[in-house]
Parts: sequence; structure tokens; C-alpha cells
Amino acid sequence: MYTIDLNSDMGESFGAYKIGGDEDIIQYITSANVACGWHAGDPMVMDRVVKMAKKYGVAVGAHPGYPDLMGFGRRKMVLSAAEIKNYMKYQIGALMAFTGSCGMQLQHVAPHGALGNLCQYDREVSKAICEAVCEIDENIAIYYCAGAVLGEIAEKAGLPAASEIFADRAYLDDLSLVPRNREGAMITNLDLAVSRCVRMIKEGKVTSITGKEINIKGNTLCVHGDGPKALAFVSKIRKSFEQEGIIIQNMR
Amino acid sequence: MYTIDLNSDMGESFGAYKIGGDEDIIQYITSANVACGWHAGDPMVMDRVVKMAKKYGVAVGAHPGYPDLMGFGRRKMVLSAAEIKNYMKYQIGALMAFTGSCGMQLQHVAPHGALGNLCQYDREVSKAICEAVCEIDENIAIYYCAGAVLGEIAEKAGLPAASEIFADRAYLDDLSLVPRNREGAMITNLDLAVSRCVRMIKEGKVTSITGKEINIKGNTLCVHGDGPKALAFVSKIRKSFEQEGIIIQNMR
Amino acid sequence: MYTIDLNSDMGESFGAYKIGGDEDIIQYITSANVACGWHAGDPMVMDRVVKMAKKYGVAVGAHPGYPDLMGFGRRKMVLSAAEIKNYMKYQIGALMAFTGSCGMQLQHVAPHGALGNLCQYDREVSKAICEAVCEIDENIAIYYCAGAVLGEIAEKAGLPAASEIFADRAYLDDLSLVPRNREGAMITNLDLAVSRCVRMIKEGKVTSITGKEINIKGNTLCVHGDGPKALAFVSKIRKSFEQEGIIIQNMR
Amino acid sequence: MYTIDLNSDMGESFGAYKIGGDEDIIQYITSANVACGWHAGDPMVMDRVVKMAKKYGVAVGAHPGYPDLMGFGRRKMVLSAAEIKNYMKYQIGALMAFTGSCGMQLQHVAPHGALGNLCQYDREVSKAICEAVCEIDENIAIYYCAGAVLGEIAEKAGLPAASEIFADRAYLDDLSLVPRNREGAMITNLDLAVSRCVRMIKEGKVTSITGKEINIKGNTLCVHGDGPKALAFVSKIRKSFEQEGIIIQNMR
Repeated sequence: MYTIDLNSDMGESFGAYKIGGDEDIIQYITSANVACGWHAGDPMVMDRVVKMAKKYGVAVGAHPGYPDLMGFGRRKMVLSAAEIKNYMKYQIGALMAFTGSCGMQLQHVAPHGALGNLCQYDREVSKAICEAVCEIDENIAIYYCAGAVLGEIAEKAGLPAASEIFADRAYLDDLSLVPRNREGAMITNLDLAVSRCVRMIKEGKVTSITGKEINIKGNTLCVHGDGPKALAFVSKIRKSFEQEGIIIQNMR
Repeated sequence: MYTIDLNSDMGESFGAYKIGGDEDIIQYITSANVACGWHAGDPMVMDRVVKMAKKYGVAVGAHPGYPDLMGFGRRKMVLSAAEIKNYMKYQIGALMAFTGSCGMQLQHVAPHGALGNLCQYDREVSKAICEAVCEIDENIAIYYCAGAVLGEIAEKAGLPAASEIFADRAYLDDLSLVPRNREGAMITNLDLAVSRCVRMIKEGKVTSITGKEINIKGNTLCVHGDGPKALAFVSKIRKSFEQEGIIIQNMR
Repeated sequence: MYTIDLNSDMGESFGAYKIGGDEDIIQYITSANVACGWHAGDPMVMDRVVKMAKKYGVAVGAHPGYPDLMGFGRRKMVLSAAEIKNYMKYQIGALMAFTGSCGMQLQHVAPHGALGNLCQYDREVSKAICEAVCEIDENIAIYYCAGAVLGEIAEKAGLPAASEIFADRAYLDDLSLVPRNREGAMITNLDLAVSRCVRMIKEGKVTSITGKEINIKGNTLCVHGDGPKALAFVSKIRKSFEQEGIIIQNMR
Repeated sequence: MYTIDLNSDMGESFGAYKIGGDEDIIQYITSANVACGWHAGDPMVMDRVVKMAKKYGVAVGAHPGYPDLMGFGRRKMVLSAAEIKNYMKYQIGALMAFTGSCGMQLQHVAPHGALGNLCQYDREVSKAICEAVCEIDENIAIYYCAGAVLGEIAEKAGLPAASEIFADRAYLDDLSLVPRNREGAMITNLDLAVSRCVRMIKEGKVTSITGKEINIKGNTLCVHGDGPKALAFVSKIRKSFEQEGIIIQNMR
């Protein structure tokens, strides 16, 4: 029996600023990565999204990022391990006030943007994040990109961990994503994207951009939250998975 | 038997900016009101202060404020009840990540600055704060200035509540503090300050600036954290209370 | 000969967050009120908008606001006159670096949001704003809502001043705008809106919501920047003004 | 005839937070590097410092930094050249509103903290900074650390440039400063510090930590603003320079 979680970034609006179609996409996913007010999101948005998740039976995870709203957390900052650890605690705790208020447990933590990218290879940053989570609650899972050092460190730390795969992105041989500006980086053919997903989940294999067969583990699939295309894609994914006998469910 | 809690504002430093003698004063108090990163404080400071409180057996409370670091939370902002409620949750939750990491329970919430001043008379603001606390954890106490509407609303909401008194400030007939710029606002005579405290605690009475005898309830006494005078004052208070048979302890 | 300036708020995007159709609306207006990075806007946005204004021959003004990005400057903050004065200088100066870089003079200052609302009646706030502008450059004009105390104070200070009128909003007898939540607040009939404008400009009269004829001065007309309706409206305005012999031009 | 400018970082306080003894040190220097509200400083502080500089005849320069108040601008952020250029313009312009209000010209720009460190070798960052300054006013000087790439790029751009030397820091062979955590990094002997200064200014030579004689250009000497030691140091420097016939003056 195969299972997959469908996750999407949510709660990235801020004050009068709106980003993403949270209300639309939430009905199709099983886990929400909710911004925590540093790179995006604010307490009003967090409250709204967590209540929405509760309503639709979607699990909530924290999506903490750099203290850089102007850069949407996408610009690398050189922080100490202690800074990262405490910045994670702060953001995770802030979100837990909202999940707790709704009688929900925080399911997971998925580092955002440039901080998330660092977790591909940076052991110190990955350890700082896992330590923060461990000290808060050892039942909170770590979401990491397939192949990232963060996954290995989360498992060593005894934390539940979910390997994230992407339907619309090509992979390099080391499982890192092909940069968006390179040709072939995006899998735009919907049928191909879906069949790649199915294979990653069922066989644990993906064909890299160089044509090699690579082992990959897929526990959770990233679903983008923007635009009509996103909804079409996630509908198709859900239908195909049903036919393939892949059960869509989160980690709870 | 009479008991009193000694509280002090702490954790108001921010990044490279230092305010307050946290390390000195913490050894003399029983409860710390810790800033939560909005009007003051940051995750590094919160981590340091919470660990210090743990070390000295001091209970930790949240000291949430307006999103106004530049004004240190001392400037009134006109926010909706929903905004205040969610801003409180965010800040309280953020601090609870640090207390939880140390195996501590959050003892109380004491609104800071201009937001705290509003709680003297504003029922809507007071209700928003109490709702936030109730939804997070009904065991968290509300600290309110003696006479404030917030105390009444906290009790109605079923929350533990502690009435805060001031040793160095004169009272108006309605128990609000005499504004600092008015003559006689500050009780500068140390012996007088201490004897007023003892009377507030033992008899529940204070002489207002107009000379009237006013009923006052004192569960927690505010101790300032700055300067050598602060340390002398708190030492003296502790000694006098011992002689008077007033037990110094927090609400845990 | 009648003249009118058409102004619109612009540059309110921030980082990854987009607000407003700046590129569309700028071709129809003569003056842009550019956010200065406090309640909205950032240096990248300011650079883009100022260059766009230069390209289309549109004059640039500063649209300074409260230090409250989360509230988009729409929430009143109780600031001292000195704070307002210096906050204005900071924001105006920041924008002038961008206009200066393009060889443009800053045309005007139009306070934003809740700060702008205060200028309807608050003499101290209005004076603080005018003092800031005077000390920077006495050739910079003040844009104020028709009837606002700010206009009177700007003129006393010797600053050029432009009275702003609204095509789509009903007026109370004292020239303040009917609050949006009251019936009849918005003039939704396009023909009526245009004919009201023409009358305000040519005759200096408007019919208030109570049916009274009120004197009103209109130097600049506020044009909203959002949505297809906004473009239709401004097109229609331009055509009608041409037929009526009203010349559309800014204050330069 | 030898001349030297004495510069010091100033205006680094923020709201209720105080850093530095601006009032003390300003009487001993000829140029002030004023923080611009991003990594430190706020409009109230900027106003105060600029007026103080005017009073004491001290020239004012901008000390712009990263948008990272929590890190005091000391943490590297990976920004694009366009971002740096516009961030510089914003901060410089903001300060110019205050110098302009006092009838002062902005003398120079000295990048702060981690951004300043990048200018030691990063050509793209250095160019972005110089472009920002050129577009605002080609008479504004660039202050760069002796040996930094920024100096070379400023001169190519036709900007006045001043090479900054340090009295209390040891140099590596490439003129970069010996990191503070290495032995011998700080020149703690006051007489040695002063004689090294004199030699740098008169002979254009300094002995590096490895014992080599290195060429160095010194137009401006960095004076620290903190503590009683700082005042003693700058007094001694001033006296020695007088005896040595070195004239202390800024670039105006």
C-alpha cells in the first residue's frame, strides 16, 4: 500500500498584502506549511489559515524563515547556529498558539526559502533546526527536500521526517533541483509530471535531467498554491493517485 | 498569613541593544515579565532570560506589547479587538516555545506599555487579551494593575488573576497612578515606600494623593530592574517583608 | 480657464507583495503619490515607480505614512509632533534620492492613511508635517483633502497647496467624506461622478449627502489605481474634461 | 603639510535603546558617520545627531547598512546589486533630509558592518554603492578602508574618496584587518597606536602583523565612540598630531 501527503505553502499574505489562493488550494491538500510572520504571514493570517485547516481536516506545519520580509525569506543571511535555533523556536511557538487554540497539534516544520535551501547540505543549520524542534516537542515532524542533509539529521535526532518530492521540477543526479533558469528545469507536461510522481512514490525512482535512474523517497508531494493551473494540477494528481491505489493522507 | 509576588520587566534588550540589569535583579524577584519580540526583546534575549529564570527559580510570564519597536510599545495604536487577540496569541506562543523547552509552564501574561495602560478602563481590549489567554491555556494568570478593568474581566473569564501594586508610585482616588509629570507622583522616600507596601498587602489600604483611604488589593509588587537604586530597594523590601511576616512567593 | 491635476496612490507594493496596477494607471494621471517604505513601498518599488513617472511625464509626490507596514498605515498611532516631523523628513528625503537620481524635483507631499485622516482637523499634526516640508524645500506642495485643516496651515506656512477632491465619494456638510460603511457613501453612477467633478472644478460647489450646496475647492482629483473599473473611470474623466474645456495638468 | 580627518560612527541609538556616547565624542572629531535607520538609528536620533554635528562644526556622512536591525547590520545578506544600489539611495536620501534641513551638505558615505566588509574585495557591491552615490550627487565622498576595492572603484567613478586607517588594529599583509579573535589583533599600547598613526599619515607606511613594511594611505582615522578610554585616546591623538604638525580637518 502506498501513501502520500500533499503539502502546500500557505498563509503568506501580510496585512493588506495578499499572496496565494489559500482558500482554493486547501481543499485539495492534506498538510499546510504556514508562514510564521517573519518572511511572510502575520497573526491575523495565521489565525485565518489555521482555522481553515481545521475546517478542512488539513494538518498544520510551521514554515519558518529568515527575518527578512522585504526579501520574502529568499535571500541568504549568515546567521549563527544559536540564532537559527532560537529564531525557529520563536516562529514555531508563535504558530503553536494558533494550532493549540483550535485543539490541533502542530504536525511538522518545513524551513522556508533560502533557509530551506541551506538544509540541502548544511549540517550545522540542519542541526540547529532539529534541536529547536526536539526541545519543543519530539513528535513534530521535519519536512525536508528529498536528498537533503536535513532528513538524515532529523532521523538521527529521533524526529519523524518526511521526504518531499516535486512533480513539476527536474532533478540533478544528486537529487537537488535543477535551477529554474536552466532549460528543462520545469516539467510542464502534466501527464509526465503525474507519471513521474507515481513512479517516485511506487518505485522510489526518478530519471534525472542527465538521464540517470536515481533513488528517491517520497513521503510528501509539494503542491503550489497559485493560479488556476495549480488547481487543475492538483485535481489531476488526486484522480491519478486514486486510480493507482496511492492513498492521500498526512502524517497524523 | 500574607504573601506577595515580586515581579519585574525583563528581556527588553534587542540585538546589540541592551536595556535593564536582568542578571542582577532576577535574583531578588519571584516572577519575570518577559518581552516577546514586538515592542522589545528578540529570540536570543528570550532564550537567555528564560534560562536565567529557570536557574533562579523565577516564574516566567509574557509581557506582550504593540508592534512598535521604535516606540518601545509606549505609543497607543488603534487596533481592532481581533488584532489585539491574535497579536497576544502570537507573542505568548512565541515565548512558550522557550519556557516549554526548559520544562517550564508560562505563569502569567502582563500587557506592556500603552497596551497595558488601555487595560485600566478599556473593556474590549481587556476582553481580547483574556480571550487570547483562555484559548491558549486557562491556567495562565493575568497580571493587572490594581483597580484595572482587566482584573474584573480576567476573573469573569475564569482566569487566575493577580493585582499589581507599586511601591514607588502615588495613587489617585480611582486607583490609577498619578502621572509621572505631576508633583508627588513618585514615592521617593524608601521607608515610606516600604511601609505603604506593607499596608497595601496586610490591610488592603493605601492613602491616595488626595489623602483618602482607598481599598487596594496587592498580589504582586512591581520591582524596577534598572540601576543600583533598584537593587537597594528590592533588598530593603525583602528584609522588611520578612520582618513583617509577609511571604514572598509567586503564583506557582 | 479651468485646470485639474489627476493624482493616484502608487508604489504600494512591497518585496514579493504586489498592490495596485501602477503600470496601467500611470498613463492616465499627472501626479503620483509614492509610498516611502514605511506603511508600504520599498526602495526597489520606489526606484521603479519614479522611473515610470519620469517616462510618462508624471510628477512625483511623497506619500508618507505611519511606521506600520502590518496595518498599511491605516491604524492611528499616537505620536508626538516631533516624531511626526522627523518621520516625514525621513520618508520624504528617502524618496528624493530617487527623484533626484532621475533629475526630477519632488512636486508634493500627501500624507497617507490614518495620518492623512488626522490632517482633516488636527492642527498640531498638520503643523508638524508642514514644518518638515518647509525645512526640506519650500517649493514642495502640500496635497490636502478639500476642507482639511492641513490646507489652511500649509498656506500659512507659505507652501504651495492643492485641494484634493474625490469623484466617487459623497461629502458631509463639513466637507469630510461620508464614511464608507454608510449608505450613499460611494458615488457609483459614473455619469453622476463625472458631472459632480466638473461642477466642483468649474463652479466650486458640491451637493452634500444632506442635500446642501457646499463650497469646495478642487485642484487635484484622486484617481484610484485598482481594477478595470479604475481605468474605465479615468478614461471617461479625461474625455469629459476635454469636452468641458478643463485642462488636465499637474502643478509643475 | 599633512592632514587627517577624524571620523566616528554615530547615531546608532534606536527608540528607547541607547548606544554610544555621541555627545562626548563629537567634540573631538571632524566627521560623523550617521546610521540611517536600517541597521541602527531612527529619524529622531538622526535629527539629534545632525543638529549636534552642525553645532560642533562636524561634517556629516551617511553610514548605510543592511535591513537587519536585529543583527545591527553585522550579518552578511546576499543581495543583488540593484537591491544594494537602491537600499543605499534610500538611506542616503533619508539622511540628506536632515542635513539639508540644517543647511548642511552630506560629506560622505561609509558603508556599515557586514556590507562594509564586503567592500574590501567585492567589486559588484562596491560598484552598486558608488553608482547610488554618483546618481545622487557626485560631490559626496566615499570612505573606504585602506586597501579596499571600494576605494579604487570610487576613484574610477570620479567620486572623492578617503582612505580610512585604524589606530588600534593590526594589519595583515594585504591591508585587511587582523580578525579580532587572533592574538595581536588589537594595538592596546596607546603610545604605539599613536606612533603607528603618525607614521601611516606622514610616511604612508605601516608594519603588518607579519613584520612587513606595507604601503598605506590614510585620509581619515577611525575613532571609536564608546567609553572613557575612547575619550582618552582621541585626546592623546589630537595632542600628538598637533606636535607632529598634522592638521586635523575634514574634507569640506
